[in-house]
Amino acid sequence: MANNGVDYDRDAVREVLDKARAEGRDSLTAPEGRRVCEAYGIPTPWEGLAGTADEAVRLAGELGAPVAMKIVSPDILHKTEAGGVKIGVSGDDAVRSAYDEILSNAKAYNADATVDGIQVQQMLSGGQEVIVGATTDPTFGKVIVFGLGGVLVEVLKDVTFRLAPVDTETAISMLDGIEAAEILRGVRGAEPVDAGALADIIVRLSDLVADFAEIREFDLNPVFARPDGASAADVRILLETEEVAAPVRYTQEEILATMNRMMRPGAIAVIGASAENGKIGNSVMKNLINGGYAGEIYPINPKADEILGRKAYKSITDVPGEIDVAVFAVPAKFVPQALREVGEKNVPAAVLIPSGFAETGNVELQDEIVAIGRKHGVRLLGPNIYGYYYTPQNLCATFCTPYDVKGGVALTSQSGGIGMAILGFSRTTKMGVSAIVGLGNKSDLDEDDLLTYFEQDDDTKVVAMHLEDLKDGRAFVTAAQQITKKKPVVVLKAGRTAMGARAASSHTGALAGDDKVYDDILRQSGVVRAYSLNDMLEFARGMPVLPTPKGENVVIITGAGGSGVLLSDACVENGLSLMDIPTDLDESFRAFIPPFGAAGNPIDITGGEPPSTYEATIRLGLEDDRIHALILGYWHTIVTPPMVFAELTARVAAEAREKGIEKPIVASLAGDTEVEEASDYLYQHGIVAYPYTTEKPVAVLGAKYRWARSAGLI
Amino acid sequence: MANNGVDYDRDAVREVLDKARAEGRDSLTAPEGRRVCEAYGIPTPWEGLAGTADEAVRLAGELGAPVAMKIVSPDILHKTEAGGVKIGVSGDDAVRSAYDEILSNAKAYNADATVDGIQVQQMLSGGQEVIVGATTDPTFGKVIVFGLGGVLVEVLKDVTFRLAPVDTETAISMLDGIEAAEILRGVRGAEPVDAGALADIIVRLSDLVADFAEIREFDLNPVFARPDGASAADVRILLETEEVAAPVRYTQEEILATMNRMMRPGAIAVIGASAENGKIGNSVMKNLINGGYAGEIYPINPKADEILGRKAYKSITDVPGEIDVAVFAVPAKFVPQALREVGEKNVPAAVLIPSGFAETGNVELQDEIVAIGRKHGVRLLGPNIYGYYYTPQNLCATFCTPYDVKGGVALTSQSGGIGMAILGFSRTTKMGVSAIVGLGNKSDLDEDDLLTYFEQDDDTKVVAMHLEDLKDGRAFVTAAQQITKKKPVVVLKAGRTAMGARAASSHTGALAGDDKVYDDILRQSGVVRAYSLNDMLEFARGMPVLPTPKGENVVIITGAGGSGVLLSDACVENGLSLMDIPTDLDESFRAFIPPFGAAGNPIDITGGEPPSTYEATIRLGLEDDRIHALILGYWHTIVTPPMVFAELTARVAAEAREKGIEKPIVASLAGDTEVEEASDYLYQHGIVAYPYTTEKPVAVLGAKYRWARSAGLI
Repeated sequence: MANNGVDYDRDAVREVLDKARAEGRDSLTAPEGRRVCEAYGIPTPWEGLAGTADEAVRLAGELGAPVAMKIVSPDILHKTEAGGVKIGVSGDDAVRSAYDEILSNAKAYNADATVDGIQVQQMLSGGQEVIVGATTDPTFGKVIVFGLGGVLVEVLKDVTFRLAPVDTETAISMLDGIEAAEILRGVRGAEPVDAGALADIIVRLSDLVADFAEIREFDLNPVFARPDGASAADVRILLETEEVAAPVRYTQEEILATMNRMMRPGAIAVIGASAENGKIGNSVMKNLINGGYAGEIYPINPKADEILGRKAYKSITDVPGEIDVAVFAVPAKFVPQALREVGEKNVPAAVLIPSGFAETGNVELQDEIVAIGRKHGVRLLGPNIYGYYYTPQNLCATFCTPYDVKGGVALTSQSGGIGMAILGFSRTTKMGVSAIVGLGNKSDLDEDDLLTYFEQDDDTKVVAMHLEDLKDGRAFVTAAQQITKKKPVVVLKAGRTAMGARAASSHTGALAGDDKVYDDILRQSGVVRAYSLNDMLEFARGMPVLPTPKGENVVIITGAGGSGVLLSDACVENGLSLMDIPTDLDESFRAFIPPFGAAGNPIDITGGEPPSTYEATIRLGLEDDRIHALILGYWHTIVTPPMVFAELTARVAAEAREKGIEKPIVASLAGDTEVEEASDYLYQHGIVAYPYTTEKPVAVLGAKYRWARSAGLI
Repeated sequence: MANNGVDYDRDAVREVLDKARAEGRDSLTAPEGRRVCEAYGIPTPWEGLAGTADEAVRLAGELGAPVAMKIVSPDILHKTEAGGVKIGVSGDDAVRSAYDEILSNAKAYNADATVDGIQVQQMLSGGQEVIVGATTDPTFGKVIVFGLGGVLVEVLKDVTFRLAPVDTETAISMLDGIEAAEILRGVRGAEPVDAGALADIIVRLSDLVADFAEIREFDLNPVFARPDGASAADVRILLETEEVAAPVRYTQEEILATMNRMMRPGAIAVIGASAENGKIGNSVMKNLINGGYAGEIYPINPKADEILGRKAYKSITDVPGEIDVAVFAVPAKFVPQALREVGEKNVPAAVLIPSGFAETGNVELQDEIVAIGRKHGVRLLGPNIYGYYYTPQNLCATFCTPYDVKGGVALTSQSGGIGMAILGFSRTTKMGVSAIVGLGNKSDLDEDDLLTYFEQDDDTKVVAMHLEDLKDGRAFVTAAQQITKKKPVVVLKAGRTAMGARAASSHTGALAGDDKVYDDILRQSGVVRAYSLNDMLEFARGMPVLPTPKGENVVIITGAGGSGVLLSDACVENGLSLMDIPTDLDESFRAFIPPFGAAGNPIDITGGEPPSTYEATIRLGLEDDRIHALILGYWHTIVTPPMVFAELTARVAAEAREKGIEKPIVASLAGDTEVEEASDYLYQHGIVAYPYTTEKPVAVLGAKYRWARSAGLI
């Protein structure tokens, strides 16, 4: 099955494609399609092309009845619609009349169509109909699709996507990746289909479209998957008619060279620095200074000699020393000239705060600055952004307010509004942040550059990104697959519904791809997708706090049976496995709880218990090696008040840590308002805790698990 | 189609069922099933029963080839498994050998099976396979199911449920209620199926199972739905073997008579009142007194003469005046005797705080108090509860702390832990509450009694219920359908996943039904289901604040394009319709916003705008009749700071209200921490606003819409 391409006949495919191109066609005929399939070892049914009714009768006789008969015309793509398909044709007379009928239907459908003949095909049957295809996604390029065939699944849209090319393992994951996967494994006593044969077709098709960039769409539909093999009954291939420009890409070394200077600069120039309150160039200067940035700050302003105590320069070219990053705070129209000067000064990065570019319809101006940047080797952040924060350098290169709670979370946003929400949320929850970066129009630097930097940045432990589109989906996937092996990346992809995508288009001019494509490929890239802004923020906050679990066994310990039920619901929703508690462990837990407490999992210690019961059960949960994560459901009582619970839990966790036991613990606190303080206390002590919600703590734990699984850590 | 049962032959069905019962069978044979179908006008294919191979050949000749042949045996229910089904049989020899083969298969499957013969059936084809069935749900009783047939849908579980009997309108809603509904409407040029004929079968089947309680399960599978009719190709009927006890029910008058005295009592007795701090009987006394309850309070304690300044009595029977409710704060074992005395005193309601009943396995004790209550006409709340609050009477009959923020939200919880979360959340958000009621073991009073009360309680505007099961699903639906016409009811059904349901069983001993049944029938009952604790609480808090929308046209006005995209996503997720803005209205909005602001919906006023732009666009949104609801996306800027936005928005909304314009407005605030204060201010002024989340405000608006639609208000 692992063919490594040795049996591929690339020349045969090249010949077919060149012929079609020479004839100015953007599609292949069915026999051409079959030739292409054969060249890559994709099984298609035995068949022949009949030019006359007699030939059709002869072919049908050789193939064995019944046969399928299909019009072959470069001008008729939708053969069924054209009345150009007859199936189950059996007997000489029937073949003859089917031949005539197809021809006359085709004529009626399109009188001018060139007809190459009628394909007579061995009928495939007795298998499960599936579709294997490839399409060219505007974001991700060549993408492979797999799903069950038939009208029903077309309505239910039960398909799955992966970036091409896919290896056998990924192909197998596609078979498991549809809702109706059970069908392929055999239901109601049916034999399972030959997954290996199906995966082989997927791999070969993906190699084919990867090898020949001009193949725009490729459908094998239906493919009949049987217990003893699989073959494609129909093929449809569409070609690109225009050259697609390859995106500009930089090597990892090039990206890091720029990003290291931008994030850890020795000297910053502020283009448009101002002494006047309320001006952006004034806010940026103040934030750099008040934020505590220790490097050189050079205000650039043709009309000033000094700004906020720093010597000002008329042009960046006048500055004597080396500069690592230029922050722009001038109106859009002044950007091109200033950027040229930045280029002359050999500054590697420009941070373009101004708006008034593509987002307001001024695409030309944006194209102009991109060209200038590229010519001079200046990478651009923005335009249309709030700037960026990098706390390890006390760097607040933004017009917002400084942020100084240092920590491991790097956040990026495509939208300024979301950036401000990130800032406010961070401040109110005291979230430890390494970076907050605005990406705005993403004229140049984008998510993959940042992922490349954050991957090797020891100050960053987790990355959270809000995005509406990706300029270069493949570069993102490559960078994401690399970093997510080491650090979690959370992605909030906005514009994920049809209506949302409409808003995205009018906002950024970006064509948001189909969300299902994004969903599958983001998963393939190893990122954890958040489906709401608050989830993104809470995942970012909680994931660095939680240790990585070492296994799937989750245990709920609760004082409130009612919370236990809701926490269990949340576990199922977040793909967590409630551990099946072994008898000896169950007995150990029972020793601590009242006889009417519920056994099993959730462990219901019941409501009236003193602190010692919480303490003993939590300690047991931490110390038993078979348990990998704890979910606590606290119930406010007079016997065990909220802060008593919080302190004992933090203490037991700390004692375990001292013994080298690191397990994720999350908690839901049900009670009067004192549970808010208790939740804060717990969070500060490494336990992800929330009041008045059973779902949020479990969602954060679920996010950590999703990452740990995709990184191969459990 | 609306037959009103006039053509039903009830006697024929009675005869079949009686015969089966007389023979001690719990299932009907296929011919019996067909007789039952015929009696209720459910079309089945033409067929006959063959006792010999010759008879089979004769029947097949009459019906026309091909035929289906099926074993008929009361001992073989799974005919396919037994090799007892042959389809597409054509020709005398084939019929003969099929006959023999079926018989020998049946013998091999079950040598002792009684064989009545072989059913020879006209083959149905050319339609869409669907399933119509009925089952007896432990919670809801007779429930009708509809779905597409075939293995695929069995795997995808695309079915929908309704309480039986259903009318034609409800039956039609079932056809639309499955994911793959599009199939029935005709896809890829296929004709739509005859929805009327299908609905007719559903109605007749539902009448049948409603008329004959002993029918436990009824499957018409498959039913072939064609463009010109529908007929059932196979029928399977199972019967109850035991009498099912009817639940105890009270009339609405009886319920209200009790509930009015319980919720608005003139006098309360506290059984087990105590002067000792830390005792539950002490907390209850203090809360009643400190909460400001103005009626009589009688402490009952055999060992005290006076408690907290009130004269104490040895027994409730010693109290001179009339008592409306007795609150129990004694250990479980003392409850029966005290309850008898409560009964002798003719107190209509007992609030049983103690635990130690069914929830700890002591089912007998619970049965005993239920029997005592029933004998004496005392309705029971609990046991195993925190008590109840009713703020219109300043009534805090609980061992928790008093709550005094009056308002329109009534909340109930099955679990004490969730009750405490309700209390804490209410206090921290200053939610105006009419009642908080613990239901605990629900030995007697349950959700339907409370809904009946809250329906006519002018102090209650919305009801939110946490529940793990329903003791009497039908009574709940009846009460819910009545109140939801007037007031929204939010339900958090815990134990909604398989794992969650497991926890529910061990917690309450309640058998949680399949969640899909709950989901469909809760919707049928008109309640708004919340899928998380926090959603339940936020829906409860927000729904009374928002006016009821008068139509479906929702408009987003945002200062942050990025928020606009996420708000649009949330609209789609919550089933809201972004209004297609008419040209003239679009022009009116454009007059207020910069030329590069996005037209359409979301209306992106862009980030740098002054307060006047927010004000003008929000006013226009309120004053144009075609717009029915507003979603605001605020972006924190220096030009329009958070509190400026909050105050102008509240003012514009108040001005509109003075003109009689009442539209729901929700807001998402993106910005630094000042947006928290601004959100609180907005909420206090009738605008449901949240910081750092785009999804929550839209979810609350969505909940209001779901209710308004189900109540027929839009």
